[in-house]
Amino acid sequence: MNELLDQPVLFTIFGSTGDLTFRKLIPAFYNLEKRGLLGKNFKLLCIGRRAWTNEEYLKVVRPWVEKNSRFGFNEEIFQRLSSHIEYVKLEMTVLDDYKKLADYDRFENNQSSTVNIYYLAVAPSYFSIIADNLKNSGQLDRCAIHRVVLEKPFGEDLAHARSLNEVLCKAFGESNVYRIDHYLGKEMIQNIMTLRFANRVFEGIWNNRFIDNIQITASEIVGVENRGTYYDNAGALKDMVQNHLFQILSFIAMEKPSSLKAEDIRQRQSDVLENLRGLGSDEIKDNIVFGQYTASTDGSSLAYRQEENVASDSSTETFIALKLEVDSPRWKGVPFYIKTGKRLDERSTYVSIQFKPQATDLFVSQEPQQDLLIIKIQPDEGVYFRFNAKKPGTMNDISTVFMNFCQSCIYENRINTPEAYERLLLEAVKGDDTLFASWHQVELTWHYAESINLYRKKLALPIVDYAAGSDGPDASSELLKRDGREWIRNEITEESYTEN
Amino acid sequence: MNELLDQPVLFTIFGSTGDLTFRKLIPAFYNLEKRGLLGKNFKLLCIGRRAWTNEEYLKVVRPWVEKNSRFGFNEEIFQRLSSHIEYVKLEMTVLDDYKKLADYDRFENNQSSTVNIYYLAVAPSYFSIIADNLKNSGQLDRCAIHRVVLEKPFGEDLAHARSLNEVLCKAFGESNVYRIDHYLGKEMIQNIMTLRFANRVFEGIWNNRFIDNIQITASEIVGVENRGTYYDNAGALKDMVQNHLFQILSFIAMEKPSSLKAEDIRQRQSDVLENLRGLGSDEIKDNIVFGQYTASTDGSSLAYRQEENVASDSSTETFIALKLEVDSPRWKGVPFYIKTGKRLDERSTYVSIQFKPQATDLFVSQEPQQDLLIIKIQPDEGVYFRFNAKKPGTMNDISTVFMNFCQSCIYENRINTPEAYERLLLEAVKGDDTLFASWHQVELTWHYAESINLYRKKLALPIVDYAAGSDGPDASSELLKRDGREWIRNEITEESYTEN
Repeated sequence: MNELLDQPVLFTIFGSTGDLTFRKLIPAFYNLEKRGLLGKNFKLLCIGRRAWTNEEYLKVVRPWVEKNSRFGFNEEIFQRLSSHIEYVKLEMTVLDDYKKLADYDRFENNQSSTVNIYYLAVAPSYFSIIADNLKNSGQLDRCAIHRVVLEKPFGEDLAHARSLNEVLCKAFGESNVYRIDHYLGKEMIQNIMTLRFANRVFEGIWNNRFIDNIQITASEIVGVENRGTYYDNAGALKDMVQNHLFQILSFIAMEKPSSLKAEDIRQRQSDVLENLRGLGSDEIKDNIVFGQYTASTDGSSLAYRQEENVASDSSTETFIALKLEVDSPRWKGVPFYIKTGKRLDERSTYVSIQFKPQATDLFVSQEPQQDLLIIKIQPDEGVYFRFNAKKPGTMNDISTVFMNFCQSCIYENRINTPEAYERLLLEAVKGDDTLFASWHQVELTWHYAESINLYRKKLALPIVDYAAGSDGPDASSELLKRDGREWIRNEITEESYTEN
Repeated sequence: MNELLDQPVLFTIFGSTGDLTFRKLIPAFYNLEKRGLLGKNFKLLCIGRRAWTNEEYLKVVRPWVEKNSRFGFNEEIFQRLSSHIEYVKLEMTVLDDYKKLADYDRFENNQSSTVNIYYLAVAPSYFSIIADNLKNSGQLDRCAIHRVVLEKPFGEDLAHARSLNEVLCKAFGESNVYRIDHYLGKEMIQNIMTLRFANRVFEGIWNNRFIDNIQITASEIVGVENRGTYYDNAGALKDMVQNHLFQILSFIAMEKPSSLKAEDIRQRQSDVLENLRGLGSDEIKDNIVFGQYTASTDGSSLAYRQEENVASDSSTETFIALKLEVDSPRWKGVPFYIKTGKRLDERSTYVSIQFKPQATDLFVSQEPQQDLLIIKIQPDEGVYFRFNAKKPGTMNDISTVFMNFCQSCIYENRINTPEAYERLLLEAVKGDDTLFASWHQVELTWHYAESINLYRKKLALPIVDYAAGSDGPDASSELLKRDGREWIRNEITEESYTEN
């Protein structure tokens, strides 16, 4: 890490007066400062339209740091962070404004080339404009490393994503485009590869000889909140499945990469995404359930169509359940079920790996339950394994018990676990793009999302209701019941653990 | 269980004024009474030489129940237990005395035949005498089910064990001889079969494709205490390995039985014991370490040879470590290491299953540790699995973490977990001999013990010193070091768990 501390870094945030910057980016930089990872040659250029002074900007961000830093607030560290920050007024559509950026790329005693990072924390419609202006202003021709970091959505549809990508590629080169999928910054998602490939036991059982089915669940309690405009245009498929859940799926299902270099990992992830089956026009009516929440039964929360900035006749899905397969020798016959939705009855993202039933006639009084491995991604982080043991005091009665590894319990209040943005900002500075989505992945997943939505329209697939606060539409349970299966719930939460 | 409650049972304890009866048997019967498992037709005949009245006997046993019952003392339950108890003065060597036993086998409204159980809680030298006298007095000719329950040691050597067995067989028939191995009453030993055969995952990895080596460890902190006479004659091999640890080994290594009936399980256990390798005359000098404790380095505890009733030039082993193999396709190439000793630095009995190293070049900065499954038998009961996970906040650094299932934590202070004797007495009454050692097993294990001791003498194998309170002799570590391995410690105790 030490080489980082000396390297001059100019980190520019476009949209520095926006929600994302306040809630996530500035607190993440504060955490990095606290950890001593921001060197003396680190500059944070905060770009906005408002005519603020540095002091005014710092006054605005201060309460966000106080509220959102995982380390709690410390004046001295905030002062150190402040010394890196420079607020700059800039009109994003005005080419001339970009010329002043070069002035900030000046570091004392600078021998090495500067790393220039442009973080686009702005509405997607500005992505091309900023990229073009950076390029046309000559800013990117300066002798420095130039990287761009973007938030999703990467375009509004596949065609737009492609044209956007072309602009970015022309300006920065593909290897310098860092596409944030903040799920990739989550510890337990990164942990999937270690679990799988560093453990003889997990590697040995990670196949269709042992595994019956795999479920990826991301359920939320909240509704669309203040994001109605964006969400009503996107829906659960684009908002969650296409990016986050397909990313998780690719880590769970991929073959072993030849190294842990980003390019090798991405290759294996792409192999998975290229081999998804079950999403064709004649299949999706059996394999996908689209749902939308209605008001909760107790009337405490609104129906989706009543939410702010949502069309009153909206057919946008706030829930989606899919069944698909990965066409490979490892996964032949193993269905992958994916489920995500808003206004469900729990907040939890987790992967459930259910093992095949144990064919045995030994335990006559009772069938053993299928073994179950759950990887908990958020809010709790950890792994647990549910298995069968003898019920104490009986001869052969079986009880289902579990072994638990609660990462978020062990690392006191997560203080030692960096949050997703903290990880991702650091990796962007270091120039490691392992935790970012590749264009190929984005293109592949756009392709699936578009074709699903196309078939959905063509076949006029229904959208089914579910009450806010429920566990989703009945059709979602039916999807698994047809296969003789059930959705698996994450039974062992941090609370239930600490209560033990 | 209900049929038990009505069946007339006459449970006779020979040696009812002895340590075992006071410490284990009477408290176990109290617990069974508390659980409502002693029916109205249950009689407990307590035989002793002393001329006590019932009241006197009850007065003596009361404090033992107060002290040793897992449920705590309750007057009403003790009164109920007392109503089952009858103290009888009997001279064990006097044939005529046995004739009065028949008088107690009288139950009101008795339609079914009585179950007569004779528990020999006496010195082994009385086993034959009692069996002969029971037979010759005509007691066993009465129309009833007659079972005999014995404590180890089953004879003083193989020849003596054989002749003893013949006496018992002649008197009772082999199927009515219940040989107590109190380790078989331990919950986690019984659990081994459920873990293995009710779980797809465990069954699938329970072989030499996954497992590198298996270690069975029973370490004690105490010395020989007041059992010097017995122990100096027996040694660790006969006291622990031959019975308890070979039993554990047979459950860990056996093939799947065709049912959970005692005879099928015993068959599979015997298969293992018949196929032990590495204990021949030319092998044991490399595969066995005999140790004897010297005084502790701080002088707080005596050397073995200074203990009461121990010969001052004793060459009895208080520690033994063995390496052996089980000759079967499942275990080809997997060494089993066994270690037990007194005056070691921890009290813990557990089985360590160490998996093969994960051959991977992915994690360049660090080799992953070998996965490890530990079955904790006592004092803590449970299972834990140690594996590799990503160290939070790093890209690919590995940390070793564990998932823990602590059975003895969950079942509040073990109140719900019957103790070994409670289990065993109940099974003897029910007539299920699954948890008792078969003659064939006893004979096989005597055979190994005798031949080891024979070779030991013939080859004049040394006995090595270890300081009381240490982790055993250096030669024991060497035994594994030669194979590139180490003894595995039980790191996750109940204490460390609850501290988390």
